[in-house]
Amino acid sequence: MVDVTQETFGASMTQRQPMVWDAWGTADAAAPLSEQVRTLLAQVFGISGESALRRTETEVALVPSALTDLDHRWLTEAVGAEHVSTDDIDRLRHAGGKSTPDLLRRRDDAPQNAPDVIIRPADHTQVLAVLAYASANGIAVVPFGGGTSVVGGVDPVRGQFATVLALDLSRLTSVSDVDPVSGTATLGAGLTGPQAEQLLGEHGLSLGHFPQSFEFATIGGFAATRSSGQASAGYGRFDDMVTRVVVATPQGTLDLGRAPASAAGPDLRELFVGSEGALGVITSVTVRVHQVPETTAYEAWSFPDFQTGADALRAVVQAGAAPTVLRLSDEAETGLNLARSADVGGAPVQGCLAITTFEGSAAHVAARSAEAFELLSAAGGTALGAAPAQQWEHGRFGAPYLRDALLDVGVLCETLETATSWRNLANLKVKVTGALMDSLNSQGTPGVVMCHISHTYPTGASLYFTVVAKQLADPITQWRAAKSAASDAIVVAGGTITHHHAVGADHRAWMGAEVGDLGLRVLAAVKRELDPAGILNPGKLLP
Amino acid sequence: MVDVTQETFGASMTQRQPMVWDAWGTADAAAPLSEQVRTLLAQVFGISGESALRRTETEVALVPSALTDLDHRWLTEAVGAEHVSTDDIDRLRHAGGKSTPDLLRRRDDAPQNAPDVIIRPADHTQVLAVLAYASANGIAVVPFGGGTSVVGGVDPVRGQFATVLALDLSRLTSVSDVDPVSGTATLGAGLTGPQAEQLLGEHGLSLGHFPQSFEFATIGGFAATRSSGQASAGYGRFDDMVTRVVVATPQGTLDLGRAPASAAGPDLRELFVGSEGALGVITSVTVRVHQVPETTAYEAWSFPDFQTGADALRAVVQAGAAPTVLRLSDEAETGLNLARSADVGGAPVQGCLAITTFEGSAAHVAARSAEAFELLSAAGGTALGAAPAQQWEHGRFGAPYLRDALLDVGVLCETLETATSWRNLANLKVKVTGALMDSLNSQGTPGVVMCHISHTYPTGASLYFTVVAKQLADPITQWRAAKSAASDAIVVAGGTITHHHAVGADHRAWMGAEVGDLGLRVLAAVKRELDPAGILNPGKLLP
Repeated sequence: MVDVTQETFGASMTQRQPMVWDAWGTADAAAPLSEQVRTLLAQVFGISGESALRRTETEVALVPSALTDLDHRWLTEAVGAEHVSTDDIDRLRHAGGKSTPDLLRRRDDAPQNAPDVIIRPADHTQVLAVLAYASANGIAVVPFGGGTSVVGGVDPVRGQFATVLALDLSRLTSVSDVDPVSGTATLGAGLTGPQAEQLLGEHGLSLGHFPQSFEFATIGGFAATRSSGQASAGYGRFDDMVTRVVVATPQGTLDLGRAPASAAGPDLRELFVGSEGALGVITSVTVRVHQVPETTAYEAWSFPDFQTGADALRAVVQAGAAPTVLRLSDEAETGLNLARSADVGGAPVQGCLAITTFEGSAAHVAARSAEAFELLSAAGGTALGAAPAQQWEHGRFGAPYLRDALLDVGVLCETLETATSWRNLANLKVKVTGALMDSLNSQGTPGVVMCHISHTYPTGASLYFTVVAKQLADPITQWRAAKSAASDAIVVAGGTITHHHAVGADHRAWMGAEVGDLGLRVLAAVKRELDPAGILNPGKLLP
Repeated sequence: MVDVTQETFGASMTQRQPMVWDAWGTADAAAPLSEQVRTLLAQVFGISGESALRRTETEVALVPSALTDLDHRWLTEAVGAEHVSTDDIDRLRHAGGKSTPDLLRRRDDAPQNAPDVIIRPADHTQVLAVLAYASANGIAVVPFGGGTSVVGGVDPVRGQFATVLALDLSRLTSVSDVDPVSGTATLGAGLTGPQAEQLLGEHGLSLGHFPQSFEFATIGGFAATRSSGQASAGYGRFDDMVTRVVVATPQGTLDLGRAPASAAGPDLRELFVGSEGALGVITSVTVRVHQVPETTAYEAWSFPDFQTGADALRAVVQAGAAPTVLRLSDEAETGLNLARSADVGGAPVQGCLAITTFEGSAAHVAARSAEAFELLSAAGGTALGAAPAQQWEHGRFGAPYLRDALLDVGVLCETLETATSWRNLANLKVKVTGALMDSLNSQGTPGVVMCHISHTYPTGASLYFTVVAKQLADPITQWRAAKSAASDAIVVAGGTITHHHAVGADHRAWMGAEVGDLGLRVLAAVKRELDPAGILNPGKLLP
């Protein structure tokens, strides 16, 4: 390697802002509901739009830390006193992820569950040491990246152990082996999306992974959860991007991925990408990167209905002419302008909105966008020009902030996702929508269910549902019932239980349907080999 | 599914011709050496060109079958008497694969090792039953598809057992769930490449998987070995094509892959694609297929040297403008015309030959080939027109037949492959070439080493080496020494031990370098769970 570099995200760069303890995002980014949304809520749900009072971090009672002095001493020696924290605010900020049930649970007056201690190791070696100690001494370990899990993936579950520690990977921010020739770079697990893009950008490179959690989630989290970003049509899922993964386990280190492709037995990378901290802790990944695109073209489309739009997306993908971003909102989502967050609830829009963007050299963008334009036109689309696509891009990380504001005024708002073959897509959409509607109707809170396709493959696509209803007195139970009905419907209708949110705690019950009993036994056998004490992220991934 | 079909490859269709027991291919396809090759062999190696006498199948002595009457009776009841064979010619034809050491070993006068019995189950259920019986009664099981392994993958190894059976999957030829909308079809493991293409072709579909073993190898074998075909730049590796895999194990069935993509934990498909019969027997796969291309464009290129050509290929792949076929021969291979088998050994050609083909709709082919043309020209390539590319395609399955003829006249001829990042490609090529040359020189048989790139990725490429030298009296030992030196060089220089030939017996010793000790422990743990008696393909994959 000519230009091996080893950099660490320094003080001069964008520091990570802590997410608000009981909401998405940072304190300064909270957005009040627009007048048009308030009007809509009053019309549809009879909701006044008055926000509930929220507590500050210091007002929250926590279950006391169970960390023993002995463990505290050892951990302090292992990683340094300043990187071992039993501070209550720190514990609260590591008390779970950001699903709607997580955020609602935070509003509870009872003492909150939280990890007993936060450990911030400096590097892979320290992670190995902490895991070995925890394994020998019976301490549950919850790897913690950006804390953006929406499936309970970072819940501080003790399992059979007295103590649970949150292994905060925020100090693992190295960038090394930047190789612009091969288009690869090795990234520390703790780098957030913006940090990774900033460091790569200094080399003229980009990762191109933009999930909605981009601002806060980490490289290690992307790998551990098989994340998929909004530019997946162009740059692939995060699992496609990973060429090598380094994993710390209680039994030692795994370093997997010697080549761009190999026939040297099963691809063990794929066993740890998606392992959700239950089989090991991903400390770094080598990822495929690309030159910062020379140009980006935008084009939005309108289709008369969802099926016509889905067929059009399929034609483009199967022709090998996929844009960088390719997505389609259904009639409900289009009508509410959910794809363009600044206009949510504005004047209703007919039909189905699709977004395309094209990145690359000018020649590549010209050729590819011309081919896609022809195919989308031929499939019944009407070109709307660049503006709606640029508006979508501008607001593309905004939806979770809107959810915060909706939860505050008594609206239940949550999302879930699945994927299936193109042929089964319409069936799956109908079944999941029906299950959600039926569940909410039966609870006396009829809801609005919206859907979009945001990830496409030659053989199928994802479906991403957004659900809105009026909160009941116990909104967590209300949502759990709807979510459970949707999950059952997904399994029966042949979808995957999760396309990019991962399993965590929330989808565990459906993993048997996903991989079968023998598949679960295979996963359990791998876990026993690497984590014989069972300390790694108890209660996640495996039933 | 509207058009679910269940077909089985019938008597009216191209039947599989048996491969010759001691050579590649079928008896009628054997090709004598051309005059120009004979002249070259005399000049370079002082070889007269007279072919050795070869025996017929009936002249070969086999180690007697060790199958007990008890086992024979049970197997007969399980799959039917006509599907249980202890016939010596049948046993001989299942006595191993088609590597050069395999073929040389066949010429040995001593009694040949062979499986004790050949079982031809009808379907997945019968495979399950045979595996359960074999596991309970201590019979080693070697899954057998086309028998084209070049890494010892189907050697009839008994391991610790008294009996070894070859599980011939040639009756698993169903095609079902043909779904032209999603572009998928479910194929039985026993279908050969041509059979699969023929059956898919009736639906206007194609798989597009054309490894050099295409004529004989099977769908199950492609999956079990992570095969990669000559059109991998366009259609991906076989592991990319598999959306679902059904595996029979002594512990039951695995059915993996519910969606085009998923975040439901580790991708267990990837644990069984590449499992080489050591973790289970793949009985069917669902694969991504595409419409039979409307048109194909061909363009050959000349580059002044290998590095310039490699950089050009990289530019095309990294721009997202890859052709369907993209390959580059080095100076040695180009000089001998090895890429165009009809002309091997003809007038020497300067520079490095590259082949591109483009498949798809007329519009797609026009757009893509224009983009690639610009990039390859800008990178220093000279377009040679369509003819050399069409000649390459015409002879693309021919090299192993040439090897047969060379082995007959006393020439050692074998291939091996690896892959690495673009940046490391030249280094790896030099190191492997040097290791092969040094080993052959030190044995007093200086060789010719040729190389091509035949599989490209955004982050790197494969290197495929062809080695030719004069045979020593013990050519197996001669080759093992050269191969071992090359394998050590691959590991040291950062390549993967195999890009598409799999591990089998021949690469086992280097698997520790590939996945580490802990990686081997993970694989062993999975094997223990699924195959506690250790009957599945002993001596393959795992050291």
